[in-house]
Amino acid sequence: MTGKTVGLVGATGLVGQALLAVLRQRRFPVAGLRLWASARSRGRTIRFAGRPYTVADLARPDFAGCDIVFFAGTEGEQGASVRFAPAAAAAGAVVIDNGADFRMDPAVPLVVPEVNPCDVLRHRGIIANPNCSTIQMVVALAPIHRVFGLKRIVVATYQSVSGAGRGGVEALRAEMQNAKRTTQQSPFGRRIAGNVIPQIGGFSELGYSGEEWKMVRETRKIFHDESIAVNATTVRVPVAAGHSESVYFETQRPATVRGIEKLLRRASGVAYSNDSYHTPLEIAGKDDVFVSRLRPDPSTPDAFALWVVADNLRKGAATNAVQIAEQLL
Amino acid sequence: MTGKTVGLVGATGLVGQALLAVLRQRRFPVAGLRLWASARSRGRTIRFAGRPYTVADLARPDFAGCDIVFFAGTEGEQGASVRFAPAAAAAGAVVIDNGADFRMDPAVPLVVPEVNPCDVLRHRGIIANPNCSTIQMVVALAPIHRVFGLKRIVVATYQSVSGAGRGGVEALRAEMQNAKRTTQQSPFGRRIAGNVIPQIGGFSELGYSGEEWKMVRETRKIFHDESIAVNATTVRVPVAAGHSESVYFETQRPATVRGIEKLLRRASGVAYSNDSYHTPLEIAGKDDVFVSRLRPDPSTPDAFALWVVADNLRKGAATNAVQIAEQLL
Repeated sequence: MTGKTVGLVGATGLVGQALLAVLRQRRFPVAGLRLWASARSRGRTIRFAGRPYTVADLARPDFAGCDIVFFAGTEGEQGASVRFAPAAAAAGAVVIDNGADFRMDPAVPLVVPEVNPCDVLRHRGIIANPNCSTIQMVVALAPIHRVFGLKRIVVATYQSVSGAGRGGVEALRAEMQNAKRTTQQSPFGRRIAGNVIPQIGGFSELGYSGEEWKMVRETRKIFHDESIAVNATTVRVPVAAGHSESVYFETQRPATVRGIEKLLRRASGVAYSNDSYHTPLEIAGKDDVFVSRLRPDPSTPDAFALWVVADNLRKGAATNAVQIAEQLL
Repeated sequence: MTGKTVGLVGATGLVGQALLAVLRQRRFPVAGLRLWASARSRGRTIRFAGRPYTVADLARPDFAGCDIVFFAGTEGEQGASVRFAPAAAAAGAVVIDNGADFRMDPAVPLVVPEVNPCDVLRHRGIIANPNCSTIQMVVALAPIHRVFGLKRIVVATYQSVSGAGRGGVEALRAEMQNAKRTTQQSPFGRRIAGNVIPQIGGFSELGYSGEEWKMVRETRKIFHDESIAVNATTVRVPVAAGHSESVYFETQRPATVRGIEKLLRRASGVAYSNDSYHTPLEIAGKDDVFVSRLRPDPSTPDAFALWVVADNLRKGAATNAVQIAEQLL
């Protein structure tokens, strides 16, 4: 395979760092590497595959010669991709954007390789990486949707602070060391240590948060099915890395636990357990989506519940983005 | 009002201590007080209303003369009430049991005073206090159930470590001070600091945990309605005190957010907010059930979501028990 020249915007953030680790671990054929970040990281050196690379700032980025450019923007802030992705695409690169800005653009594929790999082919220079909490849910539900059809999803999340970037991780660490004080620059607005906060993103239509709408709309777009009823409550918990989700779902066609288990056991990217469960602390750093606690709802036909855990920086961001790049090759 | 002689079994535990505080704060007419605990607390002195009381052990408790005996058993272990409540009732006292052992006994009323106060009248010596996570959910939903009828509930909980008693609180504190080590005697089996654990109680029928079945069965018993579909996922989170719940529900009859808000605003025991939300850290020590984030599900008619937070040691245990005693007066 011929090597590719890879660009990475946001190289010094949590997702950017995870992306470099995943590129290396998955032996992505990196022939050249160009790194960008905001002005305060300019001139920093980052090692990749034993070689040092200097981080350039984004004042006037030159994407010429890049085959693929990852935008590792964190959730919450508007990504650099709004300003620079069109230029990167115009320069001939394929952009893979981890930010939220292009996800619902009809011209931009929103891809989870285990779910809708063929959508990659439709790109016109930009491919969007879904929201972390959406990715792990659709990886767990896609095999079920394919066979039984999903009618409705009710999900409640337990999301780690790393979803808010380095500032989130630092706020939790500082607050855990200080039993009383709330971190001033916390991205959460309230103390997160010893607490849970039922808000991720701003509140908008009907009182749902931005993160909740992402789970509704992105799920429908990835599944190419606007008829699925999705209701989400997204909650920040004092966990460093790894998102957990309590997922309740109903199928259109008659299904059984045994039938669903069979699908989950052979599903790509899924680690399924029927005799124990996973917690975020135990799966941090891993690439799989961990599914457990599958059980039927005895009060409603063809209704089930399950528990999904995944590392939001890996499969929820970096790993999924690199898998999209692998599809392109 | 004539004063009552009050007995308290489990006086030194978290719920026992909260009970004494609530009796005092609500000016319950305590004419006499008798305290019991397990053998290792024998001889300890506890102050109540400025006077010292000695804790007796449970080897051969004498309930003669008690009007009301609270059993402040924590969840999880079989309560002392199994051994001693019948004797206390036989001695003429009314037992109010915080443990789980008698809750589903058809001869024992299971009471939340805001919801089914009249059930108190049916007692034959023992009244059961429901599970903490059930109490706060039914207080929030009862006004809605009365007017619109509940068809289905899907709930995911975020439960604090104090629900597991003093051992739970101490495990979280020790683990937060030590970034790596898991507490040996933790009641949670795994590290809870920086983690979430989707198991409360043992797993039984169909893969649901004991706590999940409590939420199903107790809700139906308190509402006197076996037709309500209830699906629960109960999860321990690293919060010291205060349980949170993401509650999704459908009504039998057409309902609106405005109509439900009106009911919640005047509901007894409910503190409702429509422009902000509550977190467990902020409501610790309070008696109300805090309801916020009420919103309609646009994908399903007469379906809604809300967020409920309450202090599990107060309204979830001690406050509810004392309110039951007040009903008896």
